[in-house]
Amino acid sequence: MQLITDFSRAGNLNETDWENGLHALETLVSGQGKGSEFTGWIRLPFSYDTQEYERIKQAAQTIREQSEVLLCVGIGGSYLGTKAVLDSLLPYFGNPAGPEILYAGQTLSSSYLRELKDYLADKDYSVNVISKSGTTTEPALAYRVIAEWMQEKYTEEEIRTRTFITTDKEKGALKTLADEKGYETFVVPDDIGGRYSFLSAVGLLPIAAAGVDIDALLRGAQDASALYTTKEEGNAAVEYALHRNRLLQEGKDIELFVAYEPNLMTIGEWFKQLFGESEGKEGKGIFPASLQFTTDLHSMGQMIQEGQRNLFETVLFVEEPVGDLTVPKTEEDLDGLNYLAGASLHEVNEKARRGVLKAHVAGGVPNIFLQIAKADAYHIGALLYFFMIACGVSATLLGVNPFNQPGVEAYKVSMFRELGKPGFTE
Amino acid sequence: MQLITDFSRAGNLNETDWENGLHALETLVSGQGKGSEFTGWIRLPFSYDTQEYERIKQAAQTIREQSEVLLCVGIGGSYLGTKAVLDSLLPYFGNPAGPEILYAGQTLSSSYLRELKDYLADKDYSVNVISKSGTTTEPALAYRVIAEWMQEKYTEEEIRTRTFITTDKEKGALKTLADEKGYETFVVPDDIGGRYSFLSAVGLLPIAAAGVDIDALLRGAQDASALYTTKEEGNAAVEYALHRNRLLQEGKDIELFVAYEPNLMTIGEWFKQLFGESEGKEGKGIFPASLQFTTDLHSMGQMIQEGQRNLFETVLFVEEPVGDLTVPKTEEDLDGLNYLAGASLHEVNEKARRGVLKAHVAGGVPNIFLQIAKADAYHIGALLYFFMIACGVSATLLGVNPFNQPGVEAYKVSMFRELGKPGFTE
Repeated sequence: MQLITDFSRAGNLNETDWENGLHALETLVSGQGKGSEFTGWIRLPFSYDTQEYERIKQAAQTIREQSEVLLCVGIGGSYLGTKAVLDSLLPYFGNPAGPEILYAGQTLSSSYLRELKDYLADKDYSVNVISKSGTTTEPALAYRVIAEWMQEKYTEEEIRTRTFITTDKEKGALKTLADEKGYETFVVPDDIGGRYSFLSAVGLLPIAAAGVDIDALLRGAQDASALYTTKEEGNAAVEYALHRNRLLQEGKDIELFVAYEPNLMTIGEWFKQLFGESEGKEGKGIFPASLQFTTDLHSMGQMIQEGQRNLFETVLFVEEPVGDLTVPKTEEDLDGLNYLAGASLHEVNEKARRGVLKAHVAGGVPNIFLQIAKADAYHIGALLYFFMIACGVSATLLGVNPFNQPGVEAYKVSMFRELGKPGFTE
Repeated sequence: MQLITDFSRAGNLNETDWENGLHALETLVSGQGKGSEFTGWIRLPFSYDTQEYERIKQAAQTIREQSEVLLCVGIGGSYLGTKAVLDSLLPYFGNPAGPEILYAGQTLSSSYLRELKDYLADKDYSVNVISKSGTTTEPALAYRVIAEWMQEKYTEEEIRTRTFITTDKEKGALKTLADEKGYETFVVPDDIGGRYSFLSAVGLLPIAAAGVDIDALLRGAQDASALYTTKEEGNAAVEYALHRNRLLQEGKDIELFVAYEPNLMTIGEWFKQLFGESEGKEGKGIFPASLQFTTDLHSMGQMIQEGQRNLFETVLFVEEPVGDLTVPKTEEDLDGLNYLAGASLHEVNEKARRGVLKAHVAGGVPNIFLQIAKADAYHIGALLYFFMIACGVSATLLGVNPFNQPGVEAYKVSMFRELGKPGFTE
């Protein structure tokens, strides 16, 4: 089993719910819903460009051979999918399997970029710039600065072998630049929006460069696609979407994405973009928040247990940890923990999870439980695909377009006015 | 000016509001409110134990001389204050001013602890265990394991000089252990709860060991105390508390803590514990979430602009950045950003902030704006103190005890049952 789900503490679904849910899935998968021109991600695990896929692997190999650092320049969907996958799969302290992966263009913080410059000064690095248009303010500004650093450090030819551009297949600022300079390019597909793009070159190139098995990532998504695009009662992605919408109708305005491993928290960030940007429109949507347990039980636990009853939890647990330790016995047992001596720490984490679930449910917090067997490329690929299908169905049930983000324009226009961008001054 | 505040986009307060607010402040500061036995933090910037303060500085110096890593073992308030201050003040890439600060006991993740073991294997480290009772499950388990690592690596005498215990002044598991073994101890005061404790030894020892000027941190809190415990209209901490409560009454159930620098996001985590644990009880409280701008405008921006109108923003901006860069001009201007050439990146960040504020306010999101002149120890000390006073007043206005956390017991009891702790089995 790829993904174990338990919806038994989230309420009940009836026949009509399932009819609606499977209808929404059909609408989504058959490309008849709102924004259907952006559903290329659904078939992507099977329909990807095999030639580009081989080029990705070769470029990843080149990056690995020539770089201590890979600098990924992107924001939003050109940033979070990659970071979610890599944080989940790479070790906590350093990456022996490949270059260090750092990010730029995801912030306008001048301090961050200035310190990054110093950090990179004595390191060999490659750069992957990821932007469909090539004109998004944050990554475009960062890349202007980074291009200068590269010119100070490398020859034109070295820059050519160290620059990888992921952008529109035929037009835009970055495509023009890459063609002029001879930089290798990869494609941000026209029919896939940023938050659904981790299995395109947007995610695959940096993920492969870091040393992750992208074949396994894809295989996980393929198997998930077979399961979760099937129009049958019991489809867990549809079930999840149905419960979310029912809980929202019951006044549960906040969804807590909870993970019991610190390195899964970036999946929470990706989750927040996926659901928040897909559903947060027309005055609708569930507010997505993310928490790390048991850590945040010592901060947000009080409110979850006894605050406003306007929230529910979606909990992710990993059955088999990467590493484990045994609780030692002590002679004096001053801390009173000898009753756990000999247990594995992961076993303690798992039992804590069970206890927390009971306490929160008893406190009036509906609970949706998800478990993957391992945090490996296969299962992470499957999990993210599961969430994308669930999100498409959920937004369809909510009656909104899962694939646009009209509200993002508002702040951009307002920001361009402040910045004095030509054509935007008042 | 320590802290610039702008509440003009958050609604209006009237005379009665101010009367209530100043009354709540009076109740809090005079120690007549709920949980008043835990208000020792209010006067702490002036009333701290000067002898212990000197010992903290000496121990910090010892740690710095003998350690490549300082391992802080704690959770909740024994973790977040330290991490919030250090992440705000230390560079993004490595700390030239002191040892690397790592954390343990803040999670039950076995993978994390296992990988930490490998990482520490060839490094010299010291350990600061921080727990009032010494029996909190996460840090106590972690310390059992870490004590074994130390025994494998160091002699008894070396362990003695590398172990620092912050705990109850006279009783508990850690105090007993420290007295037996001769470890130096520091005090978690009886009259200060975890989330209000960053200016006690809980925070000061690791913060000083990392190389931060704790005199400046204290001075910031002292100056903030003079300002924000004064019963006068215009007290910004009271004003903030009043606006939060009014916004909650108007159906704004979610507060977004927003910062425009990535390294201030841990203050967001600390903020979530402070307000969430202080107010989230008796079915009440504002749900606190944290966001990084402009980064998260590309994920949660859509929902903020056009989702449910149940949220407001509290934005933190730093006037003067640690580092800055100039936007370069390019010959071809392919990305169309030459209109920004010559501007400082921080200037762009600041203008983006202004644009975003206008867009979100126009979209129906009330905005509270806070600005500090610099992210240095003085201003961070002042800022956190400001939030603590504001939180005490806010919870008092809400009618709840700002200093207890009765709901945390529920999950602990349920967890202990699952773990089979003696006395808790069903």
